[in-house]
Amino acid sequence: MGSAVITREDECGLALGRLASIVEQVSELHSKGHQIMLVTSGAVAFGKQKLRQEVAMSMSMRQTLSSRDTQFRTNQRLPPRACAAAGQSGLMALYEAMFTQYGLRTAQILVTKPDFQNDESRNNMRSTLLELLNLNIIPIINANDAVAPPPEQDLDLHGVISVKDNDSLAARIAGEINADLLMLLSDVDGLYTSPPGTDGSRLMHTYSPNSNGRSLIFGEGSRVGTGGMESKVKAALFALERDVSVVIANGFANLAIKNIISGKKVGTFFTEHTESTTPVEQQASNAREGGRALQKLAPFQRAAIIEKLASLLLDRQAEILAANKLDLDEARRSGLAAPLISRLVLSEHKLKILADGLQQIAKDSYNNLGRVLRRTKLSEDINLQQISVPIGVLLVIFESRPDCLPQVAALAISSGNGLLLKGGKEAYHSNKILHGLVQEAMEPHVPRTTIELVSKREDIGDLIQMDQYIDLIIPRGSSDLVKSIQEQSKGIPVLGHSEGVCHVYIDREVNPEMAIKIVRDSKCDYPAACNAMETLLLHKTLLNTTLFDNIIEMLKANDVVIHAGPKLLEHMKFGPPPSKSMKTEYSGLECNIDIVNDVDEAIAHIHQFGSSHTDSIVTENEQTAAQFLKNVDSACVFHNASTRFSDGFRFGLGAEVGISTARIHARGPVGVQGLLTTKWILQGNGDVVTDYSQDGEKVFCHESLPLQTES
Amino acid sequence: MGSAVITREDECGLALGRLASIVEQVSELHSKGHQIMLVTSGAVAFGKQKLRQEVAMSMSMRQTLSSRDTQFRTNQRLPPRACAAAGQSGLMALYEAMFTQYGLRTAQILVTKPDFQNDESRNNMRSTLLELLNLNIIPIINANDAVAPPPEQDLDLHGVISVKDNDSLAARIAGEINADLLMLLSDVDGLYTSPPGTDGSRLMHTYSPNSNGRSLIFGEGSRVGTGGMESKVKAALFALERDVSVVIANGFANLAIKNIISGKKVGTFFTEHTESTTPVEQQASNAREGGRALQKLAPFQRAAIIEKLASLLLDRQAEILAANKLDLDEARRSGLAAPLISRLVLSEHKLKILADGLQQIAKDSYNNLGRVLRRTKLSEDINLQQISVPIGVLLVIFESRPDCLPQVAALAISSGNGLLLKGGKEAYHSNKILHGLVQEAMEPHVPRTTIELVSKREDIGDLIQMDQYIDLIIPRGSSDLVKSIQEQSKGIPVLGHSEGVCHVYIDREVNPEMAIKIVRDSKCDYPAACNAMETLLLHKTLLNTTLFDNIIEMLKANDVVIHAGPKLLEHMKFGPPPSKSMKTEYSGLECNIDIVNDVDEAIAHIHQFGSSHTDSIVTENEQTAAQFLKNVDSACVFHNASTRFSDGFRFGLGAEVGISTARIHARGPVGVQGLLTTKWILQGNGDVVTDYSQDGEKVFCHESLPLQTES
Repeated sequence: MGSAVITREDECGLALGRLASIVEQVSELHSKGHQIMLVTSGAVAFGKQKLRQEVAMSMSMRQTLSSRDTQFRTNQRLPPRACAAAGQSGLMALYEAMFTQYGLRTAQILVTKPDFQNDESRNNMRSTLLELLNLNIIPIINANDAVAPPPEQDLDLHGVISVKDNDSLAARIAGEINADLLMLLSDVDGLYTSPPGTDGSRLMHTYSPNSNGRSLIFGEGSRVGTGGMESKVKAALFALERDVSVVIANGFANLAIKNIISGKKVGTFFTEHTESTTPVEQQASNAREGGRALQKLAPFQRAAIIEKLASLLLDRQAEILAANKLDLDEARRSGLAAPLISRLVLSEHKLKILADGLQQIAKDSYNNLGRVLRRTKLSEDINLQQISVPIGVLLVIFESRPDCLPQVAALAISSGNGLLLKGGKEAYHSNKILHGLVQEAMEPHVPRTTIELVSKREDIGDLIQMDQYIDLIIPRGSSDLVKSIQEQSKGIPVLGHSEGVCHVYIDREVNPEMAIKIVRDSKCDYPAACNAMETLLLHKTLLNTTLFDNIIEMLKANDVVIHAGPKLLEHMKFGPPPSKSMKTEYSGLECNIDIVNDVDEAIAHIHQFGSSHTDSIVTENEQTAAQFLKNVDSACVFHNASTRFSDGFRFGLGAEVGISTARIHARGPVGVQGLLTTKWILQGNGDVVTDYSQDGEKVFCHESLPLQTES
Repeated sequence: MGSAVITREDECGLALGRLASIVEQVSELHSKGHQIMLVTSGAVAFGKQKLRQEVAMSMSMRQTLSSRDTQFRTNQRLPPRACAAAGQSGLMALYEAMFTQYGLRTAQILVTKPDFQNDESRNNMRSTLLELLNLNIIPIINANDAVAPPPEQDLDLHGVISVKDNDSLAARIAGEINADLLMLLSDVDGLYTSPPGTDGSRLMHTYSPNSNGRSLIFGEGSRVGTGGMESKVKAALFALERDVSVVIANGFANLAIKNIISGKKVGTFFTEHTESTTPVEQQASNAREGGRALQKLAPFQRAAIIEKLASLLLDRQAEILAANKLDLDEARRSGLAAPLISRLVLSEHKLKILADGLQQIAKDSYNNLGRVLRRTKLSEDINLQQISVPIGVLLVIFESRPDCLPQVAALAISSGNGLLLKGGKEAYHSNKILHGLVQEAMEPHVPRTTIELVSKREDIGDLIQMDQYIDLIIPRGSSDLVKSIQEQSKGIPVLGHSEGVCHVYIDREVNPEMAIKIVRDSKCDYPAACNAMETLLLHKTLLNTTLFDNIIEMLKANDVVIHAGPKLLEHMKFGPPPSKSMKTEYSGLECNIDIVNDVDEAIAHIHQFGSSHTDSIVTENEQTAAQFLKNVDSACVFHNASTRFSDGFRFGLGAEVGISTARIHARGPVGVQGLLTTKWILQGNGDVVTDYSQDGEKVFCHESLPLQTES
């Protein structure tokens, strides 16, 4: 691990907590072997405006203290040092006290321009800095403002920029010691395409002088002015020419330094290389454009793309299977578990089924968009209709199964949505060729970039913040994945199930064979699925019956670990170990069992502990069943059936987008309808609302009209 | 402002940043006149586990340093003080260095039990502390562990608890100096009803020994154990008996100290008084229960509640108007603006219209719930139906207009949703009586608490975190209110428009009179509304025409301030001032005007700068209109009509829930349909999915069945 140089931009104030955070991060990175030095501004510790206040406070403090000093001392022991004035010595003392808490020592280095002008002093400075780093001492570097030379000499020399500010000072030093990385911390997030806040301004994640040019235009009067970003960019380019990588980032962002060093996309990264892949924000913007292009097509054109994709899956079978073999070989080498490998496998048979499915999606796609859902005659002059339209741009994150890619692509095309896809890296080659076929099918009608494959996992973190480009996120995977996406996404809705805590309730009036069969299927058919049973509720009268014993026996025979709920424990002398929580989603061969007095108590239990996913009652009593079906407040409520039926394919929705436990938009298994929203179209005749006011000449009639599909 | 005492719980480690945050908050509060002292643990600065590491690092550091010390000194100037070992002196130095940055001085006070045992030393200690506070010095208090007396004497004395830990030390001192508030900062959020993380455990926002009892049961082996919460509660009760208010809160929470002092609901507040109003979490839980009770009713019962409410509005007219008069008097006294007062007014006429509207909602309510939206025969044995159900519990935040309350209540009842209502304080008396009538109407059928009125603004902050109780938030008010709710809500969807940047595009083929009429209505009818026009786009051929001049004239005559977009500026020698941003929602008599080449450019402009709310084209060309209506991707797209028609009442949706610019669930003006979701009901015959697998004996048929309403 090499050396790194940090400079702090104090223009807009760094609060004490931020300083502490810098010390924490630097100390932690230091303990991991990173060598880091700080370049900090001289007199200003906490920002100009704030400082003035603080100084004023200090002054009045000192007056207070001196006037009462004698009296003061008699009352208690004070730390010996006098109250230091804010400024450089105070700042150094603060740094020292903070780093001391991590067992780290600091060294203050003050430099002036002449120190860079002659080779001997430059060499001395460099060796001092390197020596300090080797001694595990954090150098804290400042321009020595007090003895700085007169300003008229302060010009850029050949190959050496001026020490006008901390940025150029840091860049110079970074060059001198051949640092690996220079972090220029500011109060803005990085370099923008135009001044931040203006229309269309976008953060540049990478900046390459080769492709972006060496000169940038900075907005006048904006915060990206001479004092701010321009000097930073100049310093960055200076360092870059000396082979030092540079990041300009927001020092106020949480853990900015650690995140930059761990390679996360923070701020603007300066590089000599032009990125070969398209940046994600460009991909997202392309998907938005592409979605609109898809929407403009006639239904037969969207169907034609999907039909073409279906035929490509068969025509290019050999290529697809060859790419899939690369993934499978790699998976076997890395020891991927057998069930995961079987999900990864593509075969002639699977491709045939996949192509058939796509043909079906193509057929169904004629009636997705522009379907009239409501027609109202508002008045003699105004007609209103509500029609179905695409949501916009979808981000679908899926794991393992490569057959998911053409399915989701077909659903997006059928519903006129732009799409960003992120597959698992274990299916890299398969996904790549399948995505190529999707693009090939789209090309005659819409841009290839309408459906994009996102290659890097860390891009997800960027994408789920881009609410200007992405309208719905669908994570198809573990509930941990879903939860993490839900927590990170700001403003973009996430469709998915957070948890599947599904119940089966066995009523008193029950067919014992049916009960056992349903419990077995619900728990054991595929215990990792979100629609598998986690808690079995039994009517109290079933205790000490053969059915009870048989259920326990069947579960044990299937290696299911049983946990007893509180009421079951009360009834048993020697029972299974107690459940830690009745809310647990085991996702494996484990379950809770508890006792309830009646169907009402079962419903109350499900409401208290369930996740509103899928709950089933087994009973021969139709009235009890009706009560359960009506009152259980879950996405799916079943009678005499396994919870495992909760699935888009089994529900007859065609290809499944996912299962939602949200209450709005789509609930339960979601088909293509979950990718659609509505739009209101109003056609008037020069109408204005003032004509319809109390004294106006027109009146509303609000007459509901029969539906007819848009021609 | 009185004195306050803080203790830090160091058991689980306080990071440097947290310490800095405490210093920042205390310093800021200090500058506002609050007198604050800290009680901190002695030897442990950064948590036991971490400390050990740090000490180890310090040791190895010191070895490194001593071995290279000479060489080291020759290279640079080091701060004079030696690297201090972690521990009390280091901690004090750190506190001092940090507080110095704010111009504040600290004083270390070490105490032992005997200091509390005789009156003279207690008096001395008290006067020292008060003197320090008066001198603007922050006392930092510790148990003097080094000279503490032997443990066998460490028993509680009469009225004086032991100085076993920082909590009891802080409680004692708080009592001695008659502090106003004692904050016990820990690493858990406060006191829970049962150990945090166990089923049903809930944070207690207030704890009253009178109602909650003086002894609590603490979970064994949980973090609420003897070392943690029990000693805190004991210390809190001790302080409470001495008239010191106490808050136990999480010191890791952002700005905990400031938020506590500013009276926000943070942690658990200990009080001798029993709260007279129901805590919000109880209200939310009641609404959940109530919603389920509403759902169980037959449709005629829900209709009966609404009808009853409608008749109560007329029967109790005198009372309602008297309460409304109280609000109006108060509003006039406080100088509320005339338009706001007119929104606040209730009248016989308004109540009549309101009652009529409720009768209509009652009539419409028969077909809201249990409507079958989809029926599928999955196989010979399985039938599936998708039916409409309530969303669950709604939180509706509304401003000013009290007539909103019975409307929203009626919509919630009609759709079977529990409801929490937060009205503006200017309508306090009106809302209170209207809410009472809602409860009176509900009482024969469901609990009164099914619809609750939330009284305090700060309760909103709590409610929007309670995703276990609340399913949808509907803020009806300014876009700032909506935005702030959207940002704060974690996990609960928010229905509302974030912004209304609406456009009117005037095409080349246009009826000039119609164009002027629509622009006037869109901009001037009610400019504060979200559906008012913000940007006028003109086809380029309209430049230098009479229509152009007439539009400008009309806008000026209506006192509309005009801003020119970039393309208009290019075409004008002397034009209006340039627009700062084409994305601005002026919400007043201001607008942007810009030029486009054709309808495609108008659409592109709307996509780039609009907020997908409502956009209108004025043209006589049906083809151009069709292009605009199809391709503009907004919730509402109009032809030859004012943008102001974008409204639930005008759309014929009956009472309006709000307008949504979200793309999922509900889009545009939202009626009662936005309060509904769906549920899947599957009826089998002992079916399990294994029977339907490749080798199973049953097959899916997925036959779509005709719809029929649930009987």
